[in-house]
Amino acid sequence: MSEITLRLDKKAQTPLFEQLYGFIKKEIICGNFSRNEKLPSKRKLAANLQCSQNTVQAAYNQLMDEGYLTARAKSGYYVAALDGILNLGGENRTSSPYQDQSLHYVYEFSHQGVDFECFPFSLWRKITREVINDYDRDLLRTGDPKGFPGLRASIAGYLHHSRGVNCTADQIIVSSGTEFLLQLLVQLLSASTVYAIENPGYEKLNLVFKSNRVEYRAVPLDRYGMQPEALEKSMADVACITPSHQFPTGCIMPISRRIQLLNWTYEKPERYILEDDYDSEFRYSGKPIPSLQGLDRQGRVIYIGAFSKSLSPALRISYMVLPEKLLRRYDEKLTFYICPVPTVEQKTLQRFMEEGHFERHLNRMRNLYKQKRETVVAAIHEILPDAEVEGASAGLHLTLRIHNGMTEQELIQSAREHQVKVYGLSRYYSVLPASKRGNTLLLGFATLKIDEIPDAVSRLREAWYP
Amino acid sequence: MSEITLRLDKKAQTPLFEQLYGFIKKEIICGNFSRNEKLPSKRKLAANLQCSQNTVQAAYNQLMDEGYLTARAKSGYYVAALDGILNLGGENRTSSPYQDQSLHYVYEFSHQGVDFECFPFSLWRKITREVINDYDRDLLRTGDPKGFPGLRASIAGYLHHSRGVNCTADQIIVSSGTEFLLQLLVQLLSASTVYAIENPGYEKLNLVFKSNRVEYRAVPLDRYGMQPEALEKSMADVACITPSHQFPTGCIMPISRRIQLLNWTYEKPERYILEDDYDSEFRYSGKPIPSLQGLDRQGRVIYIGAFSKSLSPALRISYMVLPEKLLRRYDEKLTFYICPVPTVEQKTLQRFMEEGHFERHLNRMRNLYKQKRETVVAAIHEILPDAEVEGASAGLHLTLRIHNGMTEQELIQSAREHQVKVYGLSRYYSVLPASKRGNTLLLGFATLKIDEIPDAVSRLREAWYP
Repeated sequence: MSEITLRLDKKAQTPLFEQLYGFIKKEIICGNFSRNEKLPSKRKLAANLQCSQNTVQAAYNQLMDEGYLTARAKSGYYVAALDGILNLGGENRTSSPYQDQSLHYVYEFSHQGVDFECFPFSLWRKITREVINDYDRDLLRTGDPKGFPGLRASIAGYLHHSRGVNCTADQIIVSSGTEFLLQLLVQLLSASTVYAIENPGYEKLNLVFKSNRVEYRAVPLDRYGMQPEALEKSMADVACITPSHQFPTGCIMPISRRIQLLNWTYEKPERYILEDDYDSEFRYSGKPIPSLQGLDRQGRVIYIGAFSKSLSPALRISYMVLPEKLLRRYDEKLTFYICPVPTVEQKTLQRFMEEGHFERHLNRMRNLYKQKRETVVAAIHEILPDAEVEGASAGLHLTLRIHNGMTEQELIQSAREHQVKVYGLSRYYSVLPASKRGNTLLLGFATLKIDEIPDAVSRLREAWYP
Repeated sequence: MSEITLRLDKKAQTPLFEQLYGFIKKEIICGNFSRNEKLPSKRKLAANLQCSQNTVQAAYNQLMDEGYLTARAKSGYYVAALDGILNLGGENRTSSPYQDQSLHYVYEFSHQGVDFECFPFSLWRKITREVINDYDRDLLRTGDPKGFPGLRASIAGYLHHSRGVNCTADQIIVSSGTEFLLQLLVQLLSASTVYAIENPGYEKLNLVFKSNRVEYRAVPLDRYGMQPEALEKSMADVACITPSHQFPTGCIMPISRRIQLLNWTYEKPERYILEDDYDSEFRYSGKPIPSLQGLDRQGRVIYIGAFSKSLSPALRISYMVLPEKLLRRYDEKLTFYICPVPTVEQKTLQRFMEEGHFERHLNRMRNLYKQKRETVVAAIHEILPDAEVEGASAGLHLTLRIHNGMTEQELIQSAREHQVKVYGLSRYYSVLPASKRGNTLLLGFATLKIDEIPDAVSRLREAWYP
């Protein structure tokens, strides 16, 4: 019979039964009680510890529930026969060595952020407040797995009149970030599908396809976008392209190339184009280029868009428009994935769109980004000798080629020494041809203030033409 | 030379250049202008249409940008040689046949929802308002890809003191829904990993593994949970289990079985336990059963939890605790997946936890659910003859076995005719043994009101014992 020598602390916050439970459990784990050893009866232990029998009962119950004790009818409580002893010493856990090594930059030509000054914060706040103030049980329910129907209708309307996309609200899947949509797509299409990605291109495609263990081929570009001959040769089934403003080169795919690529899909039944329209809202001369999806009449374009550039990357709202055939497959196979965007955000965004704020915000931002772009281009031409600018007619970044004899790495490094962050184009190549090892940089301008731009470019001059 | 016969509408909302652009584009697409055909000069067309040359220039520029026209130096503008003509008739798009067929039920014994009456709506609103009122640029930035560090620290603290989980904030990955965490895990572990799932078990595991094209085996349970011999025989590498309250049977895994399964992982280097602690907060007698992760000393347990049961499924916030070895791999391979939960939600939840509201809410809900559970169990025993209840000591559902000669399908169907929705246990079997074809139902009680319960159970009596 085990002896239990414990002084219960009646003033402690921990309930008495828990103190007793903890003590006995520790004794069992440490091996101080052996298997099948009998424990004192409730009555006897309660008397010893000067507590009530209920306290002992509660502790014994908990230990039985967890499997440390067993009760035998008309006999009493026994230590369970535990299979193996845990190594309680074990390894020490240390905190992860992973650290974010952020350096101090005065200016960053980042292509990922947006202008924060002009975000309609108070309006967004106001609508959020309205949404959460409507006492609304929908906010607590798991909603439609493809996204809140009202938001999907607003997106369909917007895409139709602003981007020339042909779709119903039903074809839209709302999700969080392009990478999540791509994961869904990989599961929607057959396992043997081969994806063609632009080289250079958006590096996440690469990462997602690799991580999801599907085959992809890097297909080179010419000045109109993905090369049709190289695409044909790649044996790919899905061409992933950014026709409105190629990332990162900035080229716009002309209608002839669009038709060529569409005709390529029509040649085989399971060929598709994945159109990533990531920053199509911003075009500075003329109208925005209409989507490629709008040209398709056979349901071969999967269209992806996001609010990361047009509103904020922190919202984490993106969407995908599926052609009918894939939509039916989605409805059969993938609706167990529940839309990851909280209902409050979805309703807030819907009202923001419905009340016209989104269009107004876009117009305001288009003007602002246009000014920023012009300031950057003018400063480059004025301050940097021989610099070639490309891809600046749309989007939130441009490319810059520098002819001072430095390599891309040297350009980045010397800019860094002058506390300016720029990005090399070569990191966007999944396969880097020798001819492209170069001197081209990617400059985003959305997050810079207009009056900072001349100083930022002057620092680049000091860095590159000392 | 093409002739352009268009009357520009100077009163229309559409700018003149856009009217002209649209007209020419349509003519080209319809084939009314042939390839290489020359267009009128800007000067001439402007005179004909009685508009400025700038208008014509803008329209021509847009058409050139989109690739419909080309300019030849010192010659003029020509229709581009378009490769192939698009079929503009094409298929008609119809809206998807997918329809949610929700039937009218008076009572639903759903195991998916939570009690909405007691959600601290005004408090949550208040904190959300505070979070969005702090003018805070963080709300617009893409945050830490693994989740907002403050929230991860709050979750680590909660898990440590309430669930006995050993971890630092750094080991926590915040995401949206178990299915998204599982997708990450599938990419984190090697492609040849075989997963053992509980049979019966949570049906989403099944769906996610199948959809992600990895191998899994359904492993049978005994009354302590996953059978170790069957697990060994399955040749699986990762055992996916719900030890705190098995879904759907409700059994609690005793310490002896926990140790057995942990020892199983220690036998080979790449073996893991995936502990899904989905409703562990709710236990009605004694303390909550501590997590299995807390017993592990060699970093072999991946712990998954969520706020779906404890707060609301509409929040879409879940988390995963990775052992050090997998954390390092995650940091190398998967940080391109950005946390899908918006920063506002993450900060709101953090404050909610930090200020003690979460613990208070849990205590309140534990009492409420305890009352509901007792009411359901009492009503069943009182109203339904011979009913066997199991798995009711924790969680938000129980199982009910009925001995009236009806099959599971007949039980569900007759309940449905009395407008009560109950769920059959067999749908949770990925492989259904003949011996289990049966008469067992799953009854969730979180969403029912206490005073509705007797009537709901009376309807079941009318359905099953007419």
